[in-house]
Amino acid sequence: MSKPLEKLGIDIERFYKKKGFKSKVGYGKHPALLIIDLAVAWTDPTSRLGTNLDSVVESTKEVLNMSRKKKLPIIYTVITYHQSLKDAGLWVKKIPALADAIAPTPYIPASQVDPRIKPKPNEIVLTKKFSSAFFGTNLAALLNNLGVDTIIVTGCSTSACVRATVTDGLGYGFRTIVPRECVGDRVPAANEWNLIDIDAKFGDVVSKKEVLKYLKSL
Amino acid sequence: MSKPLEKLGIDIERFYKKKGFKSKVGYGKHPALLIIDLAVAWTDPTSRLGTNLDSVVESTKEVLNMSRKKKLPIIYTVITYHQSLKDAGLWVKKIPALADAIAPTPYIPASQVDPRIKPKPNEIVLTKKFSSAFFGTNLAALLNNLGVDTIIVTGCSTSACVRATVTDGLGYGFRTIVPRECVGDRVPAANEWNLIDIDAKFGDVVSKKEVLKYLKSL
Amino acid sequence: MSKPLEKLGIDIERFYKKKGFKSKVGYGKHPALLIIDLAVAWTDPTSRLGTNLDSVVESTKEVLNMSRKKKLPIIYTVITYHQSLKDAGLWVKKIPALADAIAPTPYIPASQVDPRIKPKPNEIVLTKKFSSAFFGTNLAALLNNLGVDTIIVTGCSTSACVRATVTDGLGYGFRTIVPRECVGDRVPAANEWNLIDIDAKFGDVVSKKEVLKYLKSL
Amino acid sequence: MSKPLEKLGIDIERFYKKKGFKSKVGYGKHPALLIIDLAVAWTDPTSRLGTNLDSVVESTKEVLNMSRKKKLPIIYTVITYHQSLKDAGLWVKKIPALADAIAPTPYIPASQVDPRIKPKPNEIVLTKKFSSAFFGTNLAALLNNLGVDTIIVTGCSTSACVRATVTDGLGYGFRTIVPRECVGDRVPAANEWNLIDIDAKFGDVVSKKEVLKYLKSL
Repeated sequence: MSKPLEKLGIDIERFYKKKGFKSKVGYGKHPALLIIDLAVAWTDPTSRLGTNLDSVVESTKEVLNMSRKKKLPIIYTVITYHQSLKDAGLWVKKIPALADAIAPTPYIPASQVDPRIKPKPNEIVLTKKFSSAFFGTNLAALLNNLGVDTIIVTGCSTSACVRATVTDGLGYGFRTIVPRECVGDRVPAANEWNLIDIDAKFGDVVSKKEVLKYLKSL
Repeated sequence: MSKPLEKLGIDIERFYKKKGFKSKVGYGKHPALLIIDLAVAWTDPTSRLGTNLDSVVESTKEVLNMSRKKKLPIIYTVITYHQSLKDAGLWVKKIPALADAIAPTPYIPASQVDPRIKPKPNEIVLTKKFSSAFFGTNLAALLNNLGVDTIIVTGCSTSACVRATVTDGLGYGFRTIVPRECVGDRVPAANEWNLIDIDAKFGDVVSKKEVLKYLKSL
Repeated sequence: MSKPLEKLGIDIERFYKKKGFKSKVGYGKHPALLIIDLAVAWTDPTSRLGTNLDSVVESTKEVLNMSRKKKLPIIYTVITYHQSLKDAGLWVKKIPALADAIAPTPYIPASQVDPRIKPKPNEIVLTKKFSSAFFGTNLAALLNNLGVDTIIVTGCSTSACVRATVTDGLGYGFRTIVPRECVGDRVPAANEWNLIDIDAKFGDVVSKKEVLKYLKSL
Repeated sequence: MSKPLEKLGIDIERFYKKKGFKSKVGYGKHPALLIIDLAVAWTDPTSRLGTNLDSVVESTKEVLNMSRKKKLPIIYTVITYHQSLKDAGLWVKKIPALADAIAPTPYIPASQVDPRIKPKPNEIVLTKKFSSAFFGTNLAALLNNLGVDTIIVTGCSTSACVRATVTDGLGYGFRTIVPRECVGDRVPAANEWNLIDIDAKFGDVVSKKEVLKYLKSL
């Protein structure tokens, strides 16, 4: 553990492979694009919840454009709480900064999707209250109803909402694909180690290039 | 990121506190003890799924003994699959080693709780198929029915089933407490970084001593 | 079965009691009021989804007023679909009339709560896509976080959303109370037989008067 | 309501069709057979939970045989509680007779599948604690993982576990088919009215003959 993270990662990868972990989930035939919490307060480095995610937004935009071209289901999530925070539960106790995620008004758009990847009217924006996009939402039912078998998971934060969404997604039987350039975190190291965990146990962490090629092939 | 993990952890802790993360969930009045996946194949270092968790088992046993004394609800989980692996879903595709977790027989007890912390007849053993103890089980309903408001989460692996259980537990409204000595992982670094993530966002990572003191006070 | 429903009901009640069904769930100490789908299109007899529910609305208003006085959690549900109906799933295939429940606009308020029982800003309106108020929503988590142990279920329709909510509510460990005058259905007979089923198996069907007395006593 | 149930049913059917209800969900391409709670105590007329379901068992057996021939996924459910009834929750408070459904022993096989339709080793038996086969179980995940799009729901009781399973099944996006001869209830009238409700709102109630023809065609 006294090694830096990059070197640790290589050892861990080797270890997991030997023990029978870190195999490939693989791609299915009917992907949907999930864009997790790329909302105003999260992509604004000056807000409590935010950090600079410009490159994540730009990479996600490329995958979004290709997904639109292929007419795939596109689903955004945002976290939005009642002004009373009644529906924020214990999470806002653990993370007081989440109190900024109250329902958007013309003056407080914190919970609205970043305008650089503005949802089109035929795309769905799910409001969630917790980390996983599946927790307390109709996402599993929605994806089943749409015939989806694969989810491309993008957005933030890798160490909370992205990871929890990937975990639940695999559990429900969706092939879970994470294009590395399209996810980000306030804490760069946490981004790295969560990608190590995800790739070992819950989803395939791949390059944006590979995902674009896959989508193009559909 | 070129710093070793211990030093990174200190920086990250400071960063999270400043940003409004890493607050305390705190203890409630009606705790239950969850013992996650301390099953034969997981605690046997010679098995594909296993690693040496002797100290985790011993620490958990102390918390278990105190919980029994206080007549708290005690719930064990194990992962058990049908011999066909039909119910293992995509997880066994990602982690082929999970194929070892087939339903226990007199000759293959892989999925039975480690005999050092053998469940008593009035304690409940939940079978799960995936990482979180809440996923595809009646655990949320069970805890509500028992009037539980706090879960002490112990067992393995920190980077999968422990973390996913803590995450879902907080989401359902249970105060989530992780006694550091009572959780473990095949990969020591993954144990560390998942505890950093959990303490920042999903539950209170505390000492076994603090938990024992809390339980004693009930 | 050639008996009219009223007479059948008496025989059935006797039968269930003898067999060990139809006991009382009873009241807890921390109730919440759920008002299911009393939305514009449901309470307007001229709409496809609607029927005359004036007396249900009036009775519910009495329980609502008492709940407000006692500062209980008050939660409304409405069904609202994306204009594409993508999120309506197979339900709109089974019930084509549900296509009227698209997201409210100034001109199409179908999915807004009936103005006679207009939600106050501190009350929560949950959007659901299916029958049970718990299905694909954060209701279970919300109620746990609010410390609720009892749900007073009102609204419509008894044969779908009310019944499914009562069923799931009991499963999650909430005491389920249905004040008879506060629920209604397009089909009067379906209202009756679902109350028979609910009282036999899933919740206590009682008078509005009894509920008001209970609430007053808190 | 003073009409007998058979006549009421005809009026109601006409009413629902006119209002835009009672359409067809239809069949998909990948069905699974669900056999709900045809366990010893339920099919034994002398037990508190039981009634004579011989004809339901025989009809289900025909559908089971055809499903086996076509190598479809076959999933049984049983209700089984811990001897302490800790995991029976509020349901056993509402239905005290459920206390008979404790974990099977050589002397108390109450919760075991009726030997006339004994599961084969490659068929899955799910233990549930509540009415819907989806509630607190991994059934949704299991069906997704198996690629199922249609569920043929058989067993008992129509007024509780069958109906709740059909309801949740439709919500999760599975086409829900109920062969009329393959479901039953302690109360014949409750069987009838629940089939009316199901066919109006939650699934297609059809003849066993139609289902057999569909299965044969696969």
